[in-house]
Order: sequence, then structure tokens, then C-alpha cells
Amino acid sequence: MLRDFSTGCEWLSINTATVRKQLGLPQIIDQCARRGIRLVCPWRDQVEAAGLALISKHLKDAGVGLSGYCRGGFFPASDTAGLQAALADNRRAVDEAKALGAPCLVMVVGSLPGALTGTPKSHDLSLARQQVFDGLAATLAYAQTVDMPLAIEPLHPMQAAERACVNTLEQALDICDALEPVATGKLGVVIDAYHVWWDPKLETQIGRAGAKRLLAYHVCDWLVPTRDLVNDRGMMGDGVIELKKLRATVEASGYRGPVEVEIFSDRWWSAPAADVLDQCIGRYRTVV
Amino acid sequence: MLRDFSTGCEWLSINTATVRKQLGLPQIIDQCARRGIRLVCPWRDQVEAAGLALISKHLKDAGVGLSGYCRGGFFPASDTAGLQAALADNRRAVDEAKALGAPCLVMVVGSLPGALTGTPKSHDLSLARQQVFDGLAATLAYAQTVDMPLAIEPLHPMQAAERACVNTLEQALDICDALEPVATGKLGVVIDAYHVWWDPKLETQIGRAGAKRLLAYHVCDWLVPTRDLVNDRGMMGDGVIELKKLRATVEASGYRGPVEVEIFSDRWWSAPAADVLDQCIGRYRTVV
Repeated sequence: MLRDFSTGCEWLSINTATVRKQLGLPQIIDQCARRGIRLVCPWRDQVEAAGLALISKHLKDAGVGLSGYCRGGFFPASDTAGLQAALADNRRAVDEAKALGAPCLVMVVGSLPGALTGTPKSHDLSLARQQVFDGLAATLAYAQTVDMPLAIEPLHPMQAAERACVNTLEQALDICDALEPVATGKLGVVIDAYHVWWDPKLETQIGRAGAKRLLAYHVCDWLVPTRDLVNDRGMMGDGVIELKKLRATVEASGYRGPVEVEIFSDRWWSAPAADVLDQCIGRYRTVV
Repeated sequence: MLRDFSTGCEWLSINTATVRKQLGLPQIIDQCARRGIRLVCPWRDQVEAAGLALISKHLKDAGVGLSGYCRGGFFPASDTAGLQAALADNRRAVDEAKALGAPCLVMVVGSLPGALTGTPKSHDLSLARQQVFDGLAATLAYAQTVDMPLAIEPLHPMQAAERACVNTLEQALDICDALEPVATGKLGVVIDAYHVWWDPKLETQIGRAGAKRLLAYHVCDWLVPTRDLVNDRGMMGDGVIELKKLRATVEASGYRGPVEVEIFSDRWWSAPAADVLDQCIGRYRTVV
């Protein structure tokens, strides 16, 4: 169906964090639609700021669909109340994803409790990983009741303390295989080029994943040098990731979904949103 | 033999980069000796600045030995001349390590040519990895003629473009097994807590390594947040790495060598060297 568009960006999706400092979500949707971008991946805080019902209608009116919904996860906590609160929040995220018609809920699993705000309450990475496993199991059980696929996103190891203790594709796939031994497409992974490009086992693990586990594909670029651990991602083509090769590998494994641009960057957040989106389209057509 | 000292830091070594901005190598050696630190791991540029013969004598006079020598590696290049120059430079590094009585030469293998200076001439990570493999093979052949063990240091994935395309312990051990199927202690790895603490396969791979492959153990800490990809390492105890647990794992696998403190940090480089060394000793005794 998507292949019927003739804008040259039928498979392009914009993760709405890419221009989150310039525009509200309704405006981002409009700017995308105007350019023939038919897919976005919004964040929960952006949806909440505008209102779920309004965004749901706005998407329909604009003819823009979702490539995913960001994000569930952040399971680890230092006490039972915190663990329970995380599970409840993940159920809400699943419901929102469903209401918006997302093809999957992206899971950034979390890691050491408190680390994201600079005050880690625990250094026990193994415990965090166990809590993540348990949290994914519980959330998967709920997500299956509403038929919402969960896509675990392994994050770059430099995020292992604050944002995700799932740091390689192999580790994410091991979790998938443990929780859902027969892959049905309801539990899988996000491959984000930025997070995994360095991995010596990347090709092997993408091959292992296959169509049933590959639920989303994100791109940006790794700058040399990279000046910040979070907000210095590059526009595709400005860094060193072999994006065409990686996309070919992902598609050879059976992936047939969108290519989602997700750039956290102080530089690009300070540019006009229209310029950023035009760059995304241009680079998507030439280097991705 | 080392166990005969009674300073409480018999197994402590100082990687001399830790105070490289405050002192020259002879002064670092003196400051260590004065505190009962009997081991250092110097860098080639520091040795060159003072003169190899002078440092060799200075170490003997001070009663200070080496836990390793930093560093060989940086094999990838964009042309044959560059590859050959890297091999020649690695032979010199082996010779220097031998002259100084180092137990091993630390190998930081390099990655995309030109990336370290901000102008990558290639984005081909697979090619860099092949060049590293070939460079290690050639250097190992030379090192064996003078009986100098090579210790491959997997670097954190955030260094995959600039400094090392060997980024996990598993990858380093795979190279060791390919180049030296029967482990003799002449080819192995450096485990640096900072580079590997995040790895979900860390325990398994340390167990795989064993005494014949574990040639050096480095420590510092991972700060939350980390503000720079290179020069924001933490003093042991200031971050989130479970150092005692990691050391126990390394020693359970058969490692019986020194614990080397290596801290690249603008913060600690701006403190008086004496204070830094005193902190290293104190933290070594309490949290490592």
C-alpha cells in the first residue's frame, strides 16, 4: 500500500523527537504531511501535551500513520512500589499505542534506578537486568491481550547506566527467545543504527532476528568526534555509519517496514524544523 | 614475591596517563615509589620524552617495575605505506616494552584511518577489523621472537570509530583463539573495567579467558552522568561499576596480576599529582 506514493519517501518516517524543540506534535504532523512524509513515531510526552484524542484525529485528518510509539520501558526501581508503578505506566503506554494505531511500542528498558537523574540508588546491573526481564514479561502479557507488539530497543553501551541495560542486539534477541520462543511478530526488536553500528556481531544477529523479530529500523549517524553522549547524533551522511550496507542487511533478513529518522542533536534542534525535515528527506533519498 | 610488601598496595599499579598532565615520567615513578607503589604502566610518549635508557635506569633505581607498556596497535591505514609504517611502529613498541621489562604490550588496535584526528578517510569498519587482525598476526610473530606477550584491549563501543574496532571481550578472545589456538600466555587481553563493565556477556567471557589470556586488569569508574567520551573517567568509587565483584570474577578465572589504575580525566588532571596518587591508594584499598 505504502509503495503507491510517489514522493520518493514512501518508507521514510520521522521520529518526532527530531524536531521536538521547534514544534508541537500537531505542527510536526502537518509539516511531515506537507512534504509527503506519511509516517511519524511520536513520544508520549508530546502526545500528552497535545491530548491523545486530538492527536489521534489530527493524524487521521492529515493522512499520517505511525511507524511506532515512543516509549515503554524503564522497568527497574529500588522498591516494590516503583516496580509496580512502572508496570502500570507501561500498560498505559500500550493502551496509548493502541489508541493511536501504532504498529509497535518501542521499549527503552531502563537501567540503574535513579541514574537518569544523576543519583543512582543501586549499582547492581544484574538486578536491573532481571527487573527488565520481569517487566517485559508482564508487559508482554498485557500487550498480547490488546494485540500490541513490543519492540525492545538495545541502546548503545554508553547508555548502560542511565537508559537501558539491554545493550546489544544479541541480548535483546535472547530476551525475545526466552519470553516468546516461537516468534509471532508480537515481541521483537528495534534496530537503531546509532546504537548498534559498532557491534562485531551485528550482521549475524540481524540474520538471526528475521522478519518476525525486526519490528522497526531507526537511522541517524555517528559523528567523529561525538561531543555528547546523548544529544550529538548526526544527520545521515554526516558520520561514519555505513547506512546503505546496514539497511541492506536488515532488509535481507526480511524487514519490510519504514526507515525512521531519529536525531537527538542540539545542533539540529537549533535549526528551523522545515530545514531539518528537508534534510531528512534529501539524505534519506541519497545515503540511507 | 610482590606479596612480601607490607604497604597494602602490593598489587596496585599506576597507569602513568593518570597524572600525565602534572608530572613527567621520572617524577611519576618517584612519587609512586615514595608511596610504596611498586608498579607503573608508562606510555610511549612519556618514555620518549624522558629517554628510554634514562627511564630504564630510573625504574631500576626506584625499585619500580612495569605492569604493562602502553601501547601498540593502531593498525588500520588507508594505503600500503600506512599499513607498513604501523607494523614497523609496532615492532619498535615491542622492542621498547622488552627493554623496559614489561610483562606485556597493551594493544589499542585502532579503527577507521584518520578518525582519531577528526577526518575519517574510510567508513569501512569491516576492513579496519581485517587490517587489525592482520596487523596483530604480524606483530605477534615478531613479539614471539623476543618473548613479549601482546595484550589486546577491547575498548568501549563509543571508541569504535576513533581508537579501537575491537569492542568486546568476546571479540578480542575470538581473535586470540584464531591467532594462537593453544593459549600460551603470549597473546591475551586487557580487561579494563571502564570499557567492559556494561557487557551482558562479561562474566561468561572472563570465565572463557582464564589465566593464559588475562594479561592485565585496569580500573577506574563510570560516572553518572559521563560528560565526555574520552576524558571523564571517574576515580574508583565515584561511579557505578561494581569493582569488587568484577575483580573477584577476574581472579576467579585465574588472573593473579596487578590492578592498574588508569584514569583519563580533566578533573583529576587538574588536581595535584600527590593527591591523585593518594586517592588511588585509598580507593584501591577500600573499593577495588
